[in-house]
Amino acid sequence: MNRFTFQNPTKILFGKGRIADLGDQIPADAKVMILYGGGSAERTGVLGQVRDALAGRTVVEFGGIEPNPRFATALKAVDLVAEKGITFLLAVGGGSVIDATKFVAAAAKFDGDAWDILKSHGSVVTQAMPFGSVLTLPATASEMNSGSVITHAEKGAKLPFMSPYTYPVFSVLDPEVTYTLPKRQIANGVADAFVHVIEQYLTYPTGARVQDGFAETLLRTLIELGPEALEKPEDYDIRANLMWTATLALNGLIGAGVPQDWASHMIGHEITALNDTDHARTLAVVLPSLLNDQRGPKREKLLQYGKNVWNIDEGTDDERIDKTIAATRGFFEDLGIKTRLRDYNVDAAGINHIVTALEEHGMTALGEHRAITPNDARRILEAAL
Amino acid sequence: MNRFTFQNPTKILFGKGRIADLGDQIPADAKVMILYGGGSAERTGVLGQVRDALAGRTVVEFGGIEPNPRFATALKAVDLVAEKGITFLLAVGGGSVIDATKFVAAAAKFDGDAWDILKSHGSVVTQAMPFGSVLTLPATASEMNSGSVITHAEKGAKLPFMSPYTYPVFSVLDPEVTYTLPKRQIANGVADAFVHVIEQYLTYPTGARVQDGFAETLLRTLIELGPEALEKPEDYDIRANLMWTATLALNGLIGAGVPQDWASHMIGHEITALNDTDHARTLAVVLPSLLNDQRGPKREKLLQYGKNVWNIDEGTDDERIDKTIAATRGFFEDLGIKTRLRDYNVDAAGINHIVTALEEHGMTALGEHRAITPNDARRILEAAL
Repeated sequence: MNRFTFQNPTKILFGKGRIADLGDQIPADAKVMILYGGGSAERTGVLGQVRDALAGRTVVEFGGIEPNPRFATALKAVDLVAEKGITFLLAVGGGSVIDATKFVAAAAKFDGDAWDILKSHGSVVTQAMPFGSVLTLPATASEMNSGSVITHAEKGAKLPFMSPYTYPVFSVLDPEVTYTLPKRQIANGVADAFVHVIEQYLTYPTGARVQDGFAETLLRTLIELGPEALEKPEDYDIRANLMWTATLALNGLIGAGVPQDWASHMIGHEITALNDTDHARTLAVVLPSLLNDQRGPKREKLLQYGKNVWNIDEGTDDERIDKTIAATRGFFEDLGIKTRLRDYNVDAAGINHIVTALEEHGMTALGEHRAITPNDARRILEAAL
Repeated sequence: MNRFTFQNPTKILFGKGRIADLGDQIPADAKVMILYGGGSAERTGVLGQVRDALAGRTVVEFGGIEPNPRFATALKAVDLVAEKGITFLLAVGGGSVIDATKFVAAAAKFDGDAWDILKSHGSVVTQAMPFGSVLTLPATASEMNSGSVITHAEKGAKLPFMSPYTYPVFSVLDPEVTYTLPKRQIANGVADAFVHVIEQYLTYPTGARVQDGFAETLLRTLIELGPEALEKPEDYDIRANLMWTATLALNGLIGAGVPQDWASHMIGHEITALNDTDHARTLAVVLPSLLNDQRGPKREKLLQYGKNVWNIDEGTDDERIDKTIAATRGFFEDLGIKTRLRDYNVDAAGINHIVTALEEHGMTALGEHRAITPNDARRILEAAL
């Protein structure tokens, strides 16, 4: 087990009806800005529940945050924070809204060019506004971590940042608010959470038994839950398990003390920056190809993953790895997520663009060994066509 | 899954040599009191490492905290805090020292009779001094939770309290400091952590798949680690896994959203109050007898535990449960921990004393159904003679 520092101060309010408990979590004299995305928060009644919980407070609303949230949109919110004297932010939405809120929280307290926050991956952040979240989509775990990914449309860049100052103060997880989500978003959320676990698990062994066991539990649970959640959208227990599993997939716990990969994410981000493909779908394309390409460095963990998650323990090592990668690809496909670049209209020219973008964004030494170069990424992408 | 609120703000500094990082975690102008137990912290060099890390600071030392820490001892520390103007407490030791430090932290800020903190199980606590810990014994998880158990020798009482104000600010977990621990303490720690998991897992099913899977991971890991840790005291990976497993066994995570039992603990505390038997040993006595007695209400989870933790899935339900309880008892015995009351010189008169004490301390409705009465406890204890 590697040395680590772990701290996660976010308070989780989990269960039916917990949005009503919001008021107790925000200072009575706060000027609150509610940030949300498109019309679904209004249509599903979640915004209404939030307004009820904050009745009598000073509240400003800021809607229109995009999937793959935009730098320019977040900056408008920063301006409104200053103009209205906002002191507390409340994200109502999925990972995109929470990610944008984190960026607003940091940028509103940042002297200088807010782009530097992204360029530095967050290292220049020394303070942030307090914020909470009401989660509507189980997927990214942004509700219980300090990370955020922001897209700069003009620069064609999708860049992550994190900071110890950008943990939500609290997050409300009410599984009932997920009942009305489109199947596509549930499938994406399951795939996203799955790959989050893989990025922290499928590297090389360091004898971290609990982290491995927890990761395998999350993976097996997602494999069970994915089809169930698609089939029975109003089953509380299924949605509750999915929501908590997705949160635990990336709240720092299973990644503490172990190597981490994240190459699939970094390559995937450039696909989204290219043509706005859903984040989770880019992961489902890159991951199987990357695992196949990296079967040498990842051999021991691939065999462990196959055995403990997929019950694959017969045949030669390479046969078992082949079956394991096929099972992983099949899992995505069974969720309705295509796993080839051609399914998303990316061709050889697109690959050129992606590889160039990786170079431009300094993503030149990816993976748990910092050994995956843009040339390796090209090979991985070409095998994923 | 039940509704829950989860928050755990403690920062964990894990790994070799992390005691040197202490200085950064304590305010520069703090007046620090180091609390510790007997001579082992000095002998093993841990206190020396702590003193080095705090060189140049204002530091007062308070030694002599007992196993099963005493109310009277903690009050002496409270007096010294006031006398010296201490602003930060640092526990250096195992669960007993950390528990005592939590009580000092709360009592030093409490107006009124400090006994009320225990009588109210902590509900009267509204503030506490900040404190950190340097853990020397993997067992109780006190280093990453808000609970504490204090013994009042004159009253013959051993009572728990908890409060949102008594989480450590930070805890340093360096596996190397455990190399010199006596085998008896390692065995006790493994058993204590094991029963912590059981108390949060072996109740009745609520469909909490991740909590169950995490609990089973911790149990399987402890079953592997126990004998290994006794056999190879200086194996870093084994001790690192043991330390992190014991912390995760009771940091709130696996208990969030599920019923909890704790009857074995409450009954066991009265055995320790009677004759100072090691805490973990009282659990190893009570638990197998309690599981056997409660095989009706716990049937489904006993079968699940047998199957997923001990690979017991053949025979009738009762045969499987018999085997599962025998395996659990055998695990304790293999660690060198006896599992009968007679092994600790408790006879029928002792049982009378324990049952009376449970009544006096209001422990009259124990277990996940609040259905275990002192009479039930008597039957469980008689079967454990």
